[in-house]
Amino acid sequence: MSELRKDPVSGGWVIISVERGKRPTDFGMRVSPKKGGFCAFCKGNEYTTPPEIAAIRPDGSSPNTPGWSTRVVPNKFPALHIESELDKIADGVYHKMGGVGAHEVIIESPDHDVTLSTLPLKSLEDVLRMFHCRISDLKKDKRLKYVLIFKNEGAAAGASLEHSHTQLIALPIVPKLVHEEIVNARLYHEHKGQCIFCDIIQQEKMANIRVVSENECYLCLSPYAPRSPFETWILPKKHECGFAPDGSFSLLAQILQQTLKQIDKILNLPPYNMMIHISPFENEINEYYHWHIEIKPLLTKIAGFEWGSGFYINPTPPEEAAKFMREAQI
Amino acid sequence: MSELRKDPVSGGWVIISVERGKRPTDFGMRVSPKKGGFCAFCKGNEYTTPPEIAAIRPDGSSPNTPGWSTRVVPNKFPALHIESELDKIADGVYHKMGGVGAHEVIIESPDHDVTLSTLPLKSLEDVLRMFHCRISDLKKDKRLKYVLIFKNEGAAAGASLEHSHTQLIALPIVPKLVHEEIVNARLYHEHKGQCIFCDIIQQEKMANIRVVSENECYLCLSPYAPRSPFETWILPKKHECGFAPDGSFSLLAQILQQTLKQIDKILNLPPYNMMIHISPFENEINEYYHWHIEIKPLLTKIAGFEWGSGFYINPTPPEEAAKFMREAQI
Repeated sequence: MSELRKDPVSGGWVIISVERGKRPTDFGMRVSPKKGGFCAFCKGNEYTTPPEIAAIRPDGSSPNTPGWSTRVVPNKFPALHIESELDKIADGVYHKMGGVGAHEVIIESPDHDVTLSTLPLKSLEDVLRMFHCRISDLKKDKRLKYVLIFKNEGAAAGASLEHSHTQLIALPIVPKLVHEEIVNARLYHEHKGQCIFCDIIQQEKMANIRVVSENECYLCLSPYAPRSPFETWILPKKHECGFAPDGSFSLLAQILQQTLKQIDKILNLPPYNMMIHISPFENEINEYYHWHIEIKPLLTKIAGFEWGSGFYINPTPPEEAAKFMREAQI
Repeated sequence: MSELRKDPVSGGWVIISVERGKRPTDFGMRVSPKKGGFCAFCKGNEYTTPPEIAAIRPDGSSPNTPGWSTRVVPNKFPALHIESELDKIADGVYHKMGGVGAHEVIIESPDHDVTLSTLPLKSLEDVLRMFHCRISDLKKDKRLKYVLIFKNEGAAAGASLEHSHTQLIALPIVPKLVHEEIVNARLYHEHKGQCIFCDIIQQEKMANIRVVSENECYLCLSPYAPRSPFETWILPKKHECGFAPDGSFSLLAQILQQTLKQIDKILNLPPYNMMIHISPFENEINEYYHWHIEIKPLLTKIAGFEWGSGFYINPTPPEEAAKFMREAQI
């Protein structure tokens, strides 16, 4: 029989429908092998992207030349622009504002063939450190309220270029899903005097059925009410609102790469989306919100039911997903 | 330059990013031609589905035999079950309940080759009347709070069988997206003493730039903040909370089929999802919520940004979409 589960943070419900139960290998979605050809993100082609915003490169090497290990450039087709005006216009029942923001691409490696799960661990650490730098820099623009860092791996998950990269979009408003999490987390904190994520971490460690792995600083788990099969979260075990303020990038790189390798192994290189949720810049330091990474392999289709309801039907209980993940031979 | 627009009903924001602007024919998604082969939904194969729940068939003809024009059967792999128990269980921070509900399939025609846009108009009217009957019947089960009627056209939009059909899922809770619309609509009504949808209809008729078509009872429009290109809504012009209580099924069939033909014509038979939003059974008659149909052609990919933010990036302004729709030669 199926059951309805509520995600305590977002407030969203999912239907865990085990009759539709599938083993990891039944889903049959995988990232296509890379075709190669000319690539603007490869070393040597730096001149073909918009001028770089930041890069990790040897001292003395010039911007927009080879030698870098991580490179940040503006998105060539940005959804938002830093030079827009934040005009807010009402028109009867409607409201709009100028598309102020930033849309950047973090190229994770000069090498066309690596992925986030096969990158040298030290390079992944640099990528995470670069996320932190870009957030810190964009925060200075007081018009911006939030930075969402996200990755689309594979064309089916929305990647338009096959060279591994992450994107960030800086927004003049706090996005809806983050706002919902904030509202629920604040309400929980008012009632219980605790961070809801800290309580989840404690309960999950006690139950130990949805925990995938942990290290000194981070916990990886299959969330109680996953929107799709093998959705996986990584959270700092200590209460932290912003992205990795303690600078434990090496431990984060370790658990993130291990998790991606487990997903690649048991699901056979699936397309996936990865999102980092942090506290909005306003009230960035608080007791109720806890930053975390969400990884969503793309294994099922979003259809009319999901579009019309905001409910998700998931054929794989997270307890099973966590077990498969733990037992993956990577 | 791009702009941010807020949907006044859901409260969700979208980015209208015209630099990414595409003409309708640029999207390149279309429903694959039907392959045929054995089909459980075709006339003559009634015995291969679970026993029928309802059908429009000549007087005296037996259930589960040919002769029907519209037929309703349980989904063979239901997400929810009417015979489940509504046990609500708390486990620390988590909440779950039994998967009580119904999951039915409305087979729109015995003919394998028609679609909702090529069905005889009289048959479409019967399909709409059947939606109404099923909602009225399921409403009697007091455990159920909502019925969502939805259609997935094309495999890419989530259809697992190519024979045209609509589904319904009856739920023991009001789904999140409907709840959000209700909360916003109620708030608007408290402040303005008006139904927000009635005000939208009035404003759209005055502006006349996003209106696609209208008839005596219904208005078809491109919503102000569409989540995806060519999203289209059909609303009753008079305030109505439930699904077609005045029984104007022929006028609804007319405008729905015309709209689907316009979409098929300009987007070259795209996959799409269609959802019907009605008032929840509790407070079914009210002054603030207005039932409507939402049609979402599947032309763009939902990726990490959408999953992480609840924002949508749309390359086609609704004003342009409405113009293309109006000018479609159908």
